[in-house]
Amino acid sequence: MAYNESIKNDAKAGKQMLIGLHLGNGYGSQPGAWRMPGVDPENYTSFDARVKQAQAAERGKFQFIFLPDGPGAMLTDIETESPSFNLDVMLTLAAVARETKRIGLVATGSTTFNEPYNLAKQFKALDIMSHGRAGWNAVTSSGNDVAANYGRVIPSSEERYGRAHEVIQLIQALWGSWGKDAWVHDQESGQFARKDQIVPINLQGKYVASRGPLYIPPSEQGQPIIFHAGGSPNAHEMAGRFANAVIGAAFTIEDARAQRNAFREAAKRYGRDPDEIKYIPGLMTTIAKDRRAALDRRIQLAGDLIPQRVGYLQQMLGIPLDSTRMDEPLSKAQLAAARPSPYDPRAAHALKIAREGWSLRDILAHGVIDYHPVIVGPGVEAADHMQAWFEAGAADGFWISADVNTDGIDVFVDEVVPILQERGLFHQEYESKTLRGHLGAPDQYGIDPRV
Amino acid sequence: MAYNESIKNDAKAGKQMLIGLHLGNGYGSQPGAWRMPGVDPENYTSFDARVKQAQAAERGKFQFIFLPDGPGAMLTDIETESPSFNLDVMLTLAAVARETKRIGLVATGSTTFNEPYNLAKQFKALDIMSHGRAGWNAVTSSGNDVAANYGRVIPSSEERYGRAHEVIQLIQALWGSWGKDAWVHDQESGQFARKDQIVPINLQGKYVASRGPLYIPPSEQGQPIIFHAGGSPNAHEMAGRFANAVIGAAFTIEDARAQRNAFREAAKRYGRDPDEIKYIPGLMTTIAKDRRAALDRRIQLAGDLIPQRVGYLQQMLGIPLDSTRMDEPLSKAQLAAARPSPYDPRAAHALKIAREGWSLRDILAHGVIDYHPVIVGPGVEAADHMQAWFEAGAADGFWISADVNTDGIDVFVDEVVPILQERGLFHQEYESKTLRGHLGAPDQYGIDPRV
Repeated sequence: MAYNESIKNDAKAGKQMLIGLHLGNGYGSQPGAWRMPGVDPENYTSFDARVKQAQAAERGKFQFIFLPDGPGAMLTDIETESPSFNLDVMLTLAAVARETKRIGLVATGSTTFNEPYNLAKQFKALDIMSHGRAGWNAVTSSGNDVAANYGRVIPSSEERYGRAHEVIQLIQALWGSWGKDAWVHDQESGQFARKDQIVPINLQGKYVASRGPLYIPPSEQGQPIIFHAGGSPNAHEMAGRFANAVIGAAFTIEDARAQRNAFREAAKRYGRDPDEIKYIPGLMTTIAKDRRAALDRRIQLAGDLIPQRVGYLQQMLGIPLDSTRMDEPLSKAQLAAARPSPYDPRAAHALKIAREGWSLRDILAHGVIDYHPVIVGPGVEAADHMQAWFEAGAADGFWISADVNTDGIDVFVDEVVPILQERGLFHQEYESKTLRGHLGAPDQYGIDPRV
Repeated sequence: MAYNESIKNDAKAGKQMLIGLHLGNGYGSQPGAWRMPGVDPENYTSFDARVKQAQAAERGKFQFIFLPDGPGAMLTDIETESPSFNLDVMLTLAAVARETKRIGLVATGSTTFNEPYNLAKQFKALDIMSHGRAGWNAVTSSGNDVAANYGRVIPSSEERYGRAHEVIQLIQALWGSWGKDAWVHDQESGQFARKDQIVPINLQGKYVASRGPLYIPPSEQGQPIIFHAGGSPNAHEMAGRFANAVIGAAFTIEDARAQRNAFREAAKRYGRDPDEIKYIPGLMTTIAKDRRAALDRRIQLAGDLIPQRVGYLQQMLGIPLDSTRMDEPLSKAQLAAARPSPYDPRAAHALKIAREGWSLRDILAHGVIDYHPVIVGPGVEAADHMQAWFEAGAADGFWISADVNTDGIDVFVDEVVPILQERGLFHQEYESKTLRGHLGAPDQYGIDPRV
């Protein structure tokens, strides 16, 4: 199969994995993070906190930080839980751009609920501000909760993706509307720019249009790179056409490998080298000196929420569970009767953990119903997971959601990164100053002739 | 007349003027600023430069910086001139917010070409980031050049202002959707927020709609304040209803007084105290040790452009002028024949300067056809102008466009500000930490019951 050959070639060429850090509400990815000792409960509104977290990731040589967004659908448990996202992803990245040097800056920007010209302007300005470190995670918005904030209902999938293709095409054209050498700024001759290298784009689509040009010259990397997130056939198509990296979500090595391959095949259909698109699934981490310490940390974090999840675990395993007996392992009869749900890709792993004899509380503390694979244990377990997926052709890298964004990032940098570096799987130092450089994405100036 | 009484009261109460700094393309307000010795020609893309300029204004105790915007209509003379505006006003203000402490941060955001929810989010996030120093200059966009970047034509004035009123109302409601004490974040009790103090806004207008709430708690000033710019009856109405400050443009003390009064009367019609709305006309400055030195600096700045302006001056004065005789004053016959154009409010001033016997080049170097009154001379002339307008009830303050944004700001801070302070017309120190505090704008939490 094509991807296996490609992997062998990667290994021969000494290719290394990419690592990104998920930055959200300022506390961390676990709901209880805002209450943890040592965490400032004001971090939700603190730009200092985000800067510090990004700096920690930069210390660990992460290639990028990633800030998801999805405005408005986040107030369900506001009595006890923080919203998931940044107050504003672009303003956060602006602060981080000023106070870091190398790390890439990637944020979600909806193709559904933004004026394309405004998105083009902000991401390009961020790219200038960060000296070539910006990436745009171009996604369609879904959910009527979000749409209602814009006074609308969610368009059909066909419309959303139709508009998304046009929006990305238009924005890349605006980004490219100043040629590589258009900005002369020669005080002696008095020439500010070469007008013949600054061209209107005059794009008129079914959903969006723009005359252009944008009034911003190229950055050190030319223009931002495109990320995409998702796993549907629509996502494969959009990323295959435009993206240099995919923010993925996969629970098994097999699923991740199939996803990665689907994106690579899509890139080929658009005449691209499949290595131009990096598949980066998520990984959640609670790193401690051993499994027990890590489980205790998760229990401290999840607090009262753990018993509430028993019902969900019942469905996953297909057996009744007793939430009054949290500290007992499942009985032999329960384990024998368990049938992992074929509809939940996490179910087999949950049963494996249950069979290891952990108490009901500890099973849940393993994160068996979280959004991504979860490492709850010493750093070497995270490194092993990442190596296995990387070498199996299931991932080009990982985006890390630390449980708590204080010591949770530092412990990854101090305990996981050095192991990966020793194994030759992760770089020792930034090779480049730009995000394109970090990802090996080709230069792009002017308007891409393939589009 | 009402405003005169009010002014007398102001003087009795020892009220002082406000000063703002215009921040645009990073070079300064004169077209030749980018070529001046000592100016880095890369300032157009430099966030360092903007931060330094804002810090200079903060050293001078300016109450705010003001960043106009109007994306896309700026590439006319790109061969020799810089675009007028920031790459992105919000990212610039984000950088400045992190690297200043007190100065207010005001930017234009179009009510015509933005999703209201996105504008609400960014200005509120900036308000949090700056600890209560954000202001939104809410204006409708005009010009088909701008509209074309959004794939549209400019709507009618009725539609633009109709939408603008709805957009501001909706955004203020989103800003107020968290009550003053909604954000509890008590680690001990585990209460993150009071759900009953976070309310959907459910606004449905003719042009825009939103469900809300926004997911951002109040800042140190509660929420950003509204600026408006313009002088039309539509502007009076919009500012009278919503604004705490008006970015004005007036060439004479009489016009400025009439404008100020019109805004105050409009505020009264909406049941507001007219002192809640500050009228702030523009002032352009070239400060040097004497008139001659200042004129020479303007000539250095304007360079080849000065002879190109002779045609315009002919129209203003109603007499033929000879652009081959730039270094001669107008003849007695020319001065006798001159008839200031009744359609140009700058014409009488231009004739006054001509009658002082300056050469044609020097007349133009006085900035007689610039966008605002221009001070070309020693600092005391700026201070005198500001005092006269302030004491005549023509202005609550001024926004300053320095000719060059390096020494042009510093010289204002060092030569004009101390005179105003000595005369008791300008504060010695920031009295407040928030922009509302600087402007004396009342607190606003939750949704304004008057709207």
